[in-house]
Amino acid sequence: MAPGLNNKEKKDGASSKVTSIHLSNPHLNSMKEDILYHFDLGTGSHDLPAMFGDVKFVCVGGSPWRMKAFIQYIAGELGLGDPNADYPNICAGTDRYSMYKVGPVLSVSHGMGIPSIAIMLHELIKLLYHAKCTNVTVLRIGTSGGIGLEPGTVVITKQSVDALFKPQFEQVILGKTVVRSTDLDEELAQQLLQCSKEIDEFHTVIGNTMCTTDFYEGQARLDGAFCSYTEKEKLSYLKDAYEAGVRNIEMESSVFAAMCKLSGIRAAVVCVTLLNRLEGDQISSSHDLLVNYQQRPQKLVGYFIKKQLQV
Amino acid sequence: MAPGLNNKEKKDGASSKVTSIHLSNPHLNSMKEDILYHFDLGTGSHDLPAMFGDVKFVCVGGSPWRMKAFIQYIAGELGLGDPNADYPNICAGTDRYSMYKVGPVLSVSHGMGIPSIAIMLHELIKLLYHAKCTNVTVLRIGTSGGIGLEPGTVVITKQSVDALFKPQFEQVILGKTVVRSTDLDEELAQQLLQCSKEIDEFHTVIGNTMCTTDFYEGQARLDGAFCSYTEKEKLSYLKDAYEAGVRNIEMESSVFAAMCKLSGIRAAVVCVTLLNRLEGDQISSSHDLLVNYQQRPQKLVGYFIKKQLQV
Repeated sequence: MAPGLNNKEKKDGASSKVTSIHLSNPHLNSMKEDILYHFDLGTGSHDLPAMFGDVKFVCVGGSPWRMKAFIQYIAGELGLGDPNADYPNICAGTDRYSMYKVGPVLSVSHGMGIPSIAIMLHELIKLLYHAKCTNVTVLRIGTSGGIGLEPGTVVITKQSVDALFKPQFEQVILGKTVVRSTDLDEELAQQLLQCSKEIDEFHTVIGNTMCTTDFYEGQARLDGAFCSYTEKEKLSYLKDAYEAGVRNIEMESSVFAAMCKLSGIRAAVVCVTLLNRLEGDQISSSHDLLVNYQQRPQKLVGYFIKKQLQV
Repeated sequence: MAPGLNNKEKKDGASSKVTSIHLSNPHLNSMKEDILYHFDLGTGSHDLPAMFGDVKFVCVGGSPWRMKAFIQYIAGELGLGDPNADYPNICAGTDRYSMYKVGPVLSVSHGMGIPSIAIMLHELIKLLYHAKCTNVTVLRIGTSGGIGLEPGTVVITKQSVDALFKPQFEQVILGKTVVRSTDLDEELAQQLLQCSKEIDEFHTVIGNTMCTTDFYEGQARLDGAFCSYTEKEKLSYLKDAYEAGVRNIEMESSVFAAMCKLSGIRAAVVCVTLLNRLEGDQISSSHDLLVNYQQRPQKLVGYFIKKQLQV
């Protein structure tokens, strides 16, 4: 599906185009078999087109429990299954990631941090390619620390920036630093914002997301095992981030945006804020409130998917 | 326990000293409560000294399944429990990490990559501090890709080096790059090597370990979703790594070494190699062989702990 078109428009319009997964790796064609090690799947052992060929939406998030809850939720929303049923984990042969599927929706956990989600995305992108999937949208639904927002606010990422507020992802390849763009699909972000307005249950904003490699010192927290700065210095850094358009902080969006862009996959990052970092560091809200917050990105993305699939 | 001394020597010697956990964070003392969010534990909700005060050995590894298997194994080895029993997960309230305990041994999973293990270590170091633990040794038992070694070889890390082969860990704190040492305890590494000789079941070497932030492009693999280099360039990079003393590649050792050093905790990294990267990229050995390989660091560290606890 071309960005900005829903199924109805696609059927009516003459300009509908099929977008395949773009793999920039000439070596893959010469491999007899491709073992997706961290999924415990492979082209030699599994019929990937039969298993995944119909996937149109992939939702990814850190927590395996949350990604299981999401597949149950979306099954109910789309009328494709019982929301109380126990959906099988497709990656049951490994404990690295969890994966669930209902109709055109795949739900995959990615653990915490850039390296963990990067391994998952390398194998996910290859899986979608081997399965010959087309017109796929990938959405990260996660949790984050907010800056200057009420806890529970949902942030749709405009740009993912690094700890220096630059919209880029740096990676060392064969000893050389490669810089990649972290641009996300602006039209998709606007579509998601519109969905939130229609749901009208929680506040949602579009803003920049800072992606860090550490949760404590890397996010200017005062409560890690080490801290060499003052509260004043912490607040000054977070206010600089706010000035640069940053509204939330998490740990996966930069490489997520970079890898989806390289593969020609339209992508969005939708994270709820669990606290306002200008007011504290510890996540001390009640369990029930945190559960409620964490359901918000699921609700928003579920609503979006349902709307996209409606003819 | 001072480095290099076992319990017997400690009891006999006049020079035995108590080493506490060193926390470089003046803010912690002013906190009423410390919530270890990703463990679902806290000083307000749990009696950490009662739960963890006797811990002397902490074994950490990426996979939750493996860390559960390790606690069962060590329970049997130390005669502290049934190796077939189902030990409770202390972090059952979260799916971020798993934690198990038998006597003085704690076993904790850390997921994949530097950010994931860093979050765990911040909270583990605070846990050990709050629990008033003394003379703690932390051992990472993991898997890795080998360079120029037979698959199944165990590597005890001499120095953890980055993708440029430098023995350092770089982190951005408040927008500034901080460089930390990745030195590990040399005497502990020698003690572990001696244990492997006594076990005499598999080959073990001491060598440098390269810690990368990506499994595919970051480790010069040809089988990721993207690859912009030739096989010749890949091999040239891996041979340069070998020349720099690198014998295996994984994704957690640098921050592990840096954080343990900052806390005054003696630490070691013991990883088995699952393949020889000079000969391939895919992990294609049989399931049974991979399980056998993965048990080797557990056996080695289990033997070491048993020896240390013998009076």
